[in-house]
Amino acid sequence: MIDLTLIGIGTGNPQHLTLQAIDALNAVDLILIPNKGAGKDDLAGLRRQICDQVITNEKVKIAEFDLPGRDPKTPDYRQRVDDWHDAIAVVWSETIAAQLPSGGKVGFLVWGDPSLYDSTMRIATRLQRQQQVALTVIPGVTSIQALTASHAIPVNEIGAPFTVTTGRQLRDHGWPDSADTLVVMLDGDCSFQSIDATGVQIWWSAYAGMREEIMVSGLLSEVADQIIATRARARADHGWIMDIYLLRK
Amino acid sequence: MIDLTLIGIGTGNPQHLTLQAIDALNAVDLILIPNKGAGKDDLAGLRRQICDQVITNEKVKIAEFDLPGRDPKTPDYRQRVDDWHDAIAVVWSETIAAQLPSGGKVGFLVWGDPSLYDSTMRIATRLQRQQQVALTVIPGVTSIQALTASHAIPVNEIGAPFTVTTGRQLRDHGWPDSADTLVVMLDGDCSFQSIDATGVQIWWSAYAGMREEIMVSGLLSEVADQIIATRARARADHGWIMDIYLLRK
Ligand SMILES: C[S@@+](CC[C@H](N)C(=O)[O-])C[C@H]1O[C@@H](n2cnc3c(N)ncnc32)[C@H](O)[C@@H]1O
Ligand SMILES: C[S@@+](CC[C@H](N)C(=O)[O-])C[C@H]1O[C@@H](n2cnc3c(N)ncnc32)[C@H](O)[C@@H]1O
Repeated sequence: MIDLTLIGIGTGNPQHLTLQAIDALNAVDLILIPNKGAGKDDLAGLRRQICDQVITNEKVKIAEFDLPGRDPKTPDYRQRVDDWHDAIAVVWSETIAAQLPSGGKVGFLVWGDPSLYDSTMRIATRLQRQQQVALTVIPGVTSIQALTASHAIPVNEIGAPFTVTTGRQLRDHGWPDSADTLVVMLDGDCSFQSIDATGVQIWWSAYAGMREEIMVSGLLSEVADQIIATRARARADHGWIMDIYLLRK
Repeated sequence: MIDLTLIGIGTGNPQHLTLQAIDALNAVDLILIPNKGAGKDDLAGLRRQICDQVITNEKVKIAEFDLPGRDPKTPDYRQRVDDWHDAIAVVWSETIAAQLPSGGKVGFLVWGDPSLYDSTMRIATRLQRQQQVALTVIPGVTSIQALTASHAIPVNEIGAPFTVTTGRQLRDHGWPDSADTLVVMLDGDCSFQSIDATGVQIWWSAYAGMREEIMVSGLLSEVADQIIATRARARADHGWIMDIYLLRK
């Protein structure tokens, strides 16, 4: 029997940790940290740093595991992701069995909030198909909140809806009718270039909430080029980037 | 000169507080807490409890102020809200002037995250029109995250968008085209009754993240009546309610 806790840690600022997350990190037997192979980004490093800073319970074991890669030979995107999640579930299962042969409490540190564009919960569901797993989720500060806090803007207009979407969706389907505010995540291609910029404001952040944070905001038509150039430079400098933006008509 | 910090405190569970929020609460000269007159809900009480629990700096002053009411004689909704925000800004201004005659650092505890369906930031902007105010926002765990964590569900389907909206919007405009997932907030009327329930799943929570939390989920056609009855009973029992739900086609 395994008690699995997915712990939202916020978006890269260790100060985003909640008291609930700190309690949860101290209440598990084992914390699993993915070792992102290439190690370009600092995400595994950040997770270890957080553990060092807030775990006071000496009984908590920390184990790293090698994250399998996606198989570029699988042509279909959904199938490729599904297979990848299956492969990760197998590695989790093996690592947990090796570290906790008679079961116990396992924790995962999840970037931002575990519910938002993150696969950890879907992988946990796969584990539940193979063995008895009780799942607990600890909410975290999302990159949407980090973005709007840094720019000191509301995400919605008064009483109005907003849509959260991905770069790919914006590129493939344009601006959806239903909302005058869009939050765009998972965009490696500055997909704001694909929409009509007339009357659109943008608030953009890379490394939102982190010390490295870069912010640009203004009329999309006026700042688009600056964002594209800034993003390219930051990505080259750091070796990785995470960015997010809000568009408002 | 005033340094104003809006501090997201999460959705009613004092454990939702981030380390950043705790630092911010200890770094101000004055914390303003609205005293919601009638006092039916426990929100002012929760804010005081949070301050008691995490403020260790004895120099932090706490002042309550009476929140003005909306004027029911103003027929237009937007105008009524605008006037109300103006009136609150005046009370803030007076309370700050009385407590900190030569300026300083002022903090506000904001439910959930300050960017999400909350007027505190808009009132702060009004204050900035009258005097020099530097505004800082500390992100918090939102009720969306509290909802999805309790139900252990992702907010989005893989790579798909979702729309966040209000009960009124759902009633007046139906299900928007843009997304198969809707998060509905600010709904005093169980507005899910207004949509075609065929094939729709609902995950509903009242008092999400709090000890009192009540959860119902299932096919909307099967659980709608149960939610309506549960909500009415909980509201009568507690004297107040906050609820939120996710709908998925
Ligand atoms: C796989 S998703 C994970 C989102 C995360 N679960 C959350 O709650 O924010 C990664 C995307 O989140 C956004 N993101 C996450 N952290 C960010 C940060 N610190 N700054 C800017 N964007 C960030 C980017 O759009 C990135 O492409
Ligand atoms: C004025 S808005 C404030 C939202 C807040 N800023 C946030 O980040 O969640 C109030 C609405 O938020 C939702 N809400 C806030 N706290 C909640 C809770 N603990 N449980 C359920 N819904 C909640 C409800 O839909 C409620 O009508």
